[in-house]
Order: sequence, then C-alpha cells, then structure tokens
Amino acid sequence: MPQELLISTRTRLTPFSSRVEDCGAKAYTVYNHMLLPAIFRSLEEDYWHLCENVQVWDVSAQRQVEITGPDALKLVQLMTPRDLSQAKYGQCFYAPLCDESGNMINDPIIIKHSDEHWWLSIADTDVMLWGMGLATGFGLDVKVSEADIWPLAVQGPKAEDLLVRIFGDEVREIRFFHSKIINYAAKEFLVARSGWSKQGGFEIYVNDAELGAQLWDELFAQGEELNVRAGCPNLIERIESGLLSFGGDMGYDTTPFECGLDKYVSLEADIESLSIDALRKRPAKTRLMGLVIDRQVKLKDLRLFSGGREIGVITSNTWSPKYRTHLAFAKCDINCIAERQELHVISSTGEVPARITELPFNFESLGLKSLNSK
Amino acid sequence: MPQELLISTRTRLTPFSSRVEDCGAKAYTVYNHMLLPAIFRSLEEDYWHLCENVQVWDVSAQRQVEITGPDALKLVQLMTPRDLSQAKYGQCFYAPLCDESGNMINDPIIIKHSDEHWWLSIADTDVMLWGMGLATGFGLDVKVSEADIWPLAVQGPKAEDLLVRIFGDEVREIRFFHSKIINYAAKEFLVARSGWSKQGGFEIYVNDAELGAQLWDELFAQGEELNVRAGCPNLIERIESGLLSFGGDMGYDTTPFECGLDKYVSLEADIESLSIDALRKRPAKTRLMGLVIDRQVKLKDLRLFSGGREIGVITSNTWSPKYRTHLAFAKCDINCIAERQELHVISSTGEVPARITELPFNFESLGLKSLNSK
Repeated sequence: MPQELLISTRTRLTPFSSRVEDCGAKAYTVYNHMLLPAIFRSLEEDYWHLCENVQVWDVSAQRQVEITGPDALKLVQLMTPRDLSQAKYGQCFYAPLCDESGNMINDPIIIKHSDEHWWLSIADTDVMLWGMGLATGFGLDVKVSEADIWPLAVQGPKAEDLLVRIFGDEVREIRFFHSKIINYAAKEFLVARSGWSKQGGFEIYVNDAELGAQLWDELFAQGEELNVRAGCPNLIERIESGLLSFGGDMGYDTTPFECGLDKYVSLEADIESLSIDALRKRPAKTRLMGLVIDRQVKLKDLRLFSGGREIGVITSNTWSPKYRTHLAFAKCDINCIAERQELHVISSTGEVPARITELPFNFESLGLKSLNSK
Repeated sequence: MPQELLISTRTRLTPFSSRVEDCGAKAYTVYNHMLLPAIFRSLEEDYWHLCENVQVWDVSAQRQVEITGPDALKLVQLMTPRDLSQAKYGQCFYAPLCDESGNMINDPIIIKHSDEHWWLSIADTDVMLWGMGLATGFGLDVKVSEADIWPLAVQGPKAEDLLVRIFGDEVREIRFFHSKIINYAAKEFLVARSGWSKQGGFEIYVNDAELGAQLWDELFAQGEELNVRAGCPNLIERIESGLLSFGGDMGYDTTPFECGLDKYVSLEADIESLSIDALRKRPAKTRLMGLVIDRQVKLKDLRLFSGGREIGVITSNTWSPKYRTHLAFAKCDINCIAERQELHVISSTGEVPARITELPFNFESLGLKSLNSK
C-alpha cells in the first residue's frame, strides 16, 4: 500500500536530503521525526546492488541521544540490562533498553566517549524523553539531549575500498563494532565498522552539515568506478540477515528474550539496571521466529496458523530473490513453537504452508541455496 | 516535495485505515508512529469542503497516554505548568508539557476521568516515555501506558447536525472543550466538542476498533445529504486559524511563552510542576509571529529577513484561498519584532516583501476580506 508522503518541517530534512532526492529516492519512511529514504530504484534492484557493490546511506534518522555529566554512566546503565561497566572507549554496544518490567524501549548502538559522555544511536522511539524523565526523577547530574550528528552509512562489499580512498588505510584497522576518530577536512568524525546490513561497511558520525555534504559528494566522485549508488536500509536484505526493526518486529510489550536478544542481557552481572530484576524472573510469553514460505505470496493478513489455531503474527515479510522463497519474522506464542509442525498463512489466494525456524535464518540447514543476480 | 511513503508495521495502521484508503486518501504523514491522512482530493479542495460542510477525520494518531493510579494527578501536574487542581471531570484542557528548564515536550489536550485516571491526547512525541521515566525516577504509584483509543474527529459547520443524527440531541448540550459519555451500540464513547480546526466539531474517543468501523460507516450513511466526506487536519485551515503543530512551529527548544501559549501557564498558582520555576524566570528569546505575504510564493528557503539581517525562520506556510494571500508562521528573534518594519522572504523568483503580525491572524485589521469558494 504505497502512498504519497506529505513532507513538512515536522518530518525533518537532513543535511543530505537534497542529494538523496537528486539520486532519485522513490520512497521514504519517517523515523525519529526525520526522513529516512526507503527505496531508490526498486527494493530488489537496490538489494542486489547492495549485496554486490557499495552504497551511501543517509541514516541521519538514527539520532544520537547524547548523555553527558558526572552521572552519565549511571543513567545509561539504568536504561540497559547489558553490563557496560567494562565498556571501553571506541567500542560499539548493541543493547536493548528496558523499563523496570523488562519491556523494551529501544535497541540502540551505545557508544562510549568517556564515562561522562555517551551516545545512544537510536531506533524509532524518543529515548531522549525517557532519559530526561529518569534523570529528572532520580535527580541525576546529567544532560540528556539530541546531538547535531547525522550518521552516513557506507555499506556493501566494496565499502572498505571506497572509504580507504577518502580516509586512507587507517580505516582497514577498524574492527567490527569498533570505531576510530578520523580527520576529515578541518573536523574529526567518528567512524565505526557497523551498519544495518550484513554486507559489511561503516557508519560515519557526521558532526558538520556542510562538511557532510562535501563528504557525500566525495564518496560519489571517488566511488564511481566502484559503482557506488545512494541506498538505504533494505527490507529484503535485513530480513534475510535477521536484523530486527524496533516498533515492527519488537516493541514496548516484548522483552529482549522474546526477540532473541538474550546475549545482550547480562543476567549474571552485578549492575544497577532498572530491568535486570524483572528480566531474571519474567518468563517469555512469545518468541520471534523465522518463517519460510516456499512461494511468492501477497499476505491477506498477518496471522500465522497451526491447524485452525492462531499461534502468531507476522511482523515483517519479503520475497527473497537470492533464495527464491518468501521469508518472514513472526511473533509466536512460546507454547506453540515446534519445528516440523504444519503451519500456514493466509495469502490473497488462500492458505499457504509455512515452515518455522530459529533466527537468524540458517539457509543451508533449510536446504536453500543462494543464487546470484544474473 | 511530495514523495512516496513506504508503509510497514512500524508505521502503524488504524481501525479506519482501509476506509481512509477507500475514500481516496492521496497523502499521509506519520504521527506518533502511526498513519495520519494528510490530503484527500487536494489541500485546497479539502479546505473548502471542510469550511462549508462536514468531514470525518481518522485522527487515531492522536494517541492517548493513559495515566492511572494514586499518584496520577501528581504526575500530570508535574508535567504541565497549567494548574489542574481545579480540573473537573468532563473538561478538556489544552496544556503545554514542559521540562524543568521550561522547554516544551508536547502540547496535548488533557482529559480528566478522575484524580486517578487521566488521558493526554498527544501531539507527535513519545510523551509516554517521558511520563514513564518521571514515574520511575520519582517512585510514583502510577501506570503510564498507551490506551487502545482511536479518536475520530467530525469537523465542519455541519458536524453537530451529523452527530445528532447518530447520537441524538444530547450532543448539542456538549459545550466547547467539554465532553460527555455517549452510548453507542453496546459501548460508551467519550465525545468532546473539540478538534484541530476552527470550523466547529467533535472528537469521538473510539475504544473499540470494530464498533469504530461501524460508526465510520454510519457517519457516511447518515451524512450523505450533508455532503459528508473523509478529511484530515488541513494545512491551509490550521494556518489561517493559528493552530500550531508541535515539532514544526514549536519544539523542545521553545517555551510556551515563545509560541503564544501564555494563558496556559499558571504562573501565579501554587502547583508542583517541574517547569513553573524556570518559566517564572526565563526570558523569551524568540516569538512565533504571523507573516502575510501579499502574493503566492514558493519559498526558496525558510529564512525571514529585515534588510540584510536574518531575524527569523518560517515554520509553516500556505497560500490562503479565502484571503487571497500567502500566510506563514515564523519563529522570530524577540528583539527584532516590530510592526511596520520592512521584511522580506526569499521565493524562487527573488525577494518578496512580508508583513509581520501577532497570532492568531486578525484578518480584518490586516485589511483582508474573506472570499467564499465560488
């Protein structure tokens, strides 16, 4: 159901918006009250290009909630059940944020500048307001704000080659989910090896709108022979890769355990986190699972059935051109999950069988072979 | 710059979405992570119809932050500098929410069910998260959640006639910014005389998705001879009427005094509000003003100049078909506001003079006469 989007000052532009438009963005979404491109040529054409080349993504909408002050570490640790006591400068921490019931609030990447200076690179909820409320209520000595940072992602197998042309060989030394301060023109940008795809790449935390635009242009000039294009988080790629979207695949009613984020909860650690007690006790009611539907379908609704019984709801789905199958995530009743049971979904032409599997998808064990774009 | 919107589970549908689509919605915006229709036929055609007939609006995106429990009044009062101690059941209170610096967080309509049960019918920021943070930090005995309520607005000069056909004459007794519980089928709906236009009308707080859809259909069946149509908050009408949009015309960096909401701040009251001390001391730096530009313009950028000096930024603007003039809101440096000064904006064809005036617009004193649609 694609529709026109009415853009206003409330749906904020980014320093790259005019360039994104010039590159032919066909569709957007609104994310953290800001435009986030969603399609350039087509979902599938963008997908193949991302898997085989390099793309520049305007992900300014990944806003940075900046927490500074003597109590900054204390506040950040209150917000997440992931132990940050050993966090080192330069690392990136993917972490669920949870309230005192264990419900998720967001799933940012947390970046430590120092004990007194943190960034939370957030998904689509106003984490700043939650942080401000907690800081005020607990009387913490911190400042919680939205920083003037507009992340630019460079994603795809040729991303490193492209960044080396601009920033030099030091980019190669950045390990996965680590970052480095890189000089660019008169400024320093934090550059991390990260991004919302599994095709490899970097995120550049642009802190100067004008320089950012200059960097955008240089990425395209230097990337011409690498076949660089503007791109964006791609629905097909992120479902194949098992990357979850907060607000779609998980939300305020789910715990990290219910969406497979177990390893980001430090159950054994002695930390002052709002949610840790609840998470130690609360049993999971649902679990996010993968679905494989062996033909291309247009879903009529989002329910998942086992026989006549509704056992789950589909949260995201796509045709996978690489595996020639339809893939989905489904939030399932934890008591109804069993491999090899007979499941079905409802397409516009009737019932269609589905297989259930753990996430991320293990295509080999599912008997699915990867094709290339040709 | 209209563009396609990619709709996903994250940009939530409403109980009325399929009907809104059937009625030919041409454009949407995303508001509180939910679809909000923005245009049906055209901005101008929708506008004239709203001013002369009756429209049904899916404003489900005005989410209800529900605050319940023994400390509910305490929390709501902490959040707003408007004195709620005398609030009576059935009244609607337009109120700024502000943090301890006096910065605005949102501008909801607050509805009191009882001291222990409140709704905040919010603009586009996650007030629930701020409320949860405050409740947790202050250790308040409350529950803060998003209620399953989907407001339906019926707006326009024939709105009362339409609602009387469905709910009966008791609708006529509802005073402006008051509400009443009305029986509909097996349920009770709160119905308030309110809405985001100045054309008169009601908001129905639908608490049952299926019944809401039934009500939608009945509004169209009963409203046929009143020329009822689907509509939505209209950019032209709301600018002519001086209605502000949070996130566009005001935001986290403005106080209520900076956007003309002085009368909703109870400076003299003895209330426990986070912001009241700051608001008593903090001088206004900017002020939201009206601009009249005596010809139709396409703005090249949003700056407002006095001579060579930039004195403000335009936050919203529209051509007014009723007054045959271009209207805008502008956030102006408070030291640079003077009536009768020579101002200009930058259109695609060059400098265009503008007049500055207080909001809401007083068209008579501006020498502007209202035309009708013919």
